[in-house]
Amino acid sequence: MKKNILVTVDSNYLYPLKIMLKSLFMNNPKEHFSIYLVHSSISAQQLESLETFIASEGHEFHPIQIDEELFSEAPTLLHYTKTMYYRLLAHKFLPQTIDRILYLDPDILVINPIRELYELDLEGYLYAAADHRTMPIVEINKIRFNPFDLEAYYNSGVLLMNLALQREVIDEKDIFNFVKKYHSKLIMPDQDIMNALYSKKIKGIDEVKYNYDARFYNIYKLKSNGKVDMDYVMNHTVILHFCGKKKPWRKNYSGKFYSLYKHYEKITKDTILALEDWKAESTSGKVY
Amino acid sequence: MKKNILVTVDSNYLYPLKIMLKSLFMNNPKEHFSIYLVHSSISAQQLESLETFIASEGHEFHPIQIDEELFSEAPTLLHYTKTMYYRLLAHKFLPQTIDRILYLDPDILVINPIRELYELDLEGYLYAAADHRTMPIVEINKIRFNPFDLEAYYNSGVLLMNLALQREVIDEKDIFNFVKKYHSKLIMPDQDIMNALYSKKIKGIDEVKYNYDARFYNIYKLKSNGKVDMDYVMNHTVILHFCGKKKPWRKNYSGKFYSLYKHYEKITKDTILALEDWKAESTSGKVY
Repeated sequence: MKKNILVTVDSNYLYPLKIMLKSLFMNNPKEHFSIYLVHSSISAQQLESLETFIASEGHEFHPIQIDEELFSEAPTLLHYTKTMYYRLLAHKFLPQTIDRILYLDPDILVINPIRELYELDLEGYLYAAADHRTMPIVEINKIRFNPFDLEAYYNSGVLLMNLALQREVIDEKDIFNFVKKYHSKLIMPDQDIMNALYSKKIKGIDEVKYNYDARFYNIYKLKSNGKVDMDYVMNHTVILHFCGKKKPWRKNYSGKFYSLYKHYEKITKDTILALEDWKAESTSGKVY
Repeated sequence: MKKNILVTVDSNYLYPLKIMLKSLFMNNPKEHFSIYLVHSSISAQQLESLETFIASEGHEFHPIQIDEELFSEAPTLLHYTKTMYYRLLAHKFLPQTIDRILYLDPDILVINPIRELYELDLEGYLYAAADHRTMPIVEINKIRFNPFDLEAYYNSGVLLMNLALQREVIDEKDIFNFVKKYHSKLIMPDQDIMNALYSKKIKGIDEVKYNYDARFYNIYKLKSNGKVDMDYVMNHTVILHFCGKKKPWRKNYSGKFYSLYKHYEKITKDTILALEDWKAESTSGKVY
């Protein structure tokens, strides 16, 4: 069975997106993926490059371009474009025939099989997501969202989506009204909206397995009395998430998973170079 | 063309050996390897397991068992068995038809293609090896070997061997006599012997590319004014060598390349488990 993956990057994140996808493909060799990209302004050339990359790995690519007119009534926030709504309203743009999709941020490495996560029972839930409870930020967010009586504050970087239920329950007007009312309080808009409006309809998943925050190796290890060490992470963690402002594909990053990230980056670059060579050869008319 | 790889581990190192080989195979997908294991006491069962592993990856395995009687005249050293001679005298045991082989220690990850190293011009040289000049230990070893007028002290963990010339030049009696004479001075016996007797017949290769000491990320980076950073290593280094007493497959290791090593360890374990499942299924008579 094909597994559906959703990404909603803009053109600044196409490079890490390819690294994320390469790690997903390499560590899930038996799966067949359909990659859906919901976007508004990625060029035809960039889409073609991504299509070639994904096809060369044996998977399918479905770009979905959003007409920004559709969001003419949506409120905007300082520093954020309307693309912040794509993740929350993806069920409106994705084919009606698919009922389940796994959304993944681009600042991720997938280092183990995602099958168990993908096949999780979502009966009655809109999403499955990890509560980043190890981190102090969660407590701050719970206080910040006090009026909404949150039991948890979920990270929206890895979201298994029950599209069938979302189509029934999620109304874009609720979202737009919420943004109008609380715009001054929103820090990470799409994540804040999801938590404030739908927290009780989110199924919690293990953050160490499915949304391990790569900044906090020592904290995870300490809080688990040493259990969650490097051996444990490599054997159990499926999704390593490079949260925060410092990104491993940029200069001057450092961290416990830097070498691993850079190695996947190198493998991805080699794959892209080989495709470019192949393209150059095939268009130059040479026969090998 | 097949590429020949030499290893001389005992049974304590079969586990990291598989990890090293897996990394070699994964990052050299276009190569076909013949793996020669020179040993004296690895069990038939362990050899079969290694054979299955290597064959499942599409490569060849040639174990060569040494009759310890052959070394009845060889002197021994405290804490060292006669296996210390296997690397230096491999040309005597390997098929006379092969003229070139790449020796690799088991505490290694091969993270890029080895073709350029393997095809190096060895005309007139017995070996190609890296001088670990970045490290203070080199200076100590040069002083220690003062009487031999060394220009460099080479690390013997990665050795490209000119077997044809070795068969002409290397006499085991020279080696045994050297050990008898200098036994009190030898710290790393086979490496010391190689340097003392053959240093001038060793072609130096770039340690950052071919024998990067994984303990010294910060030193390499500092000495290169920042050039040899993680990005550089992942793009240029072919062989990462986990030198020293602390090993990444044991508990309580830490270091810049820990996550990378443990990820390859996990992939190797998965490969072994899949082979065991396959074997269990095929011997249970079940048909799938």
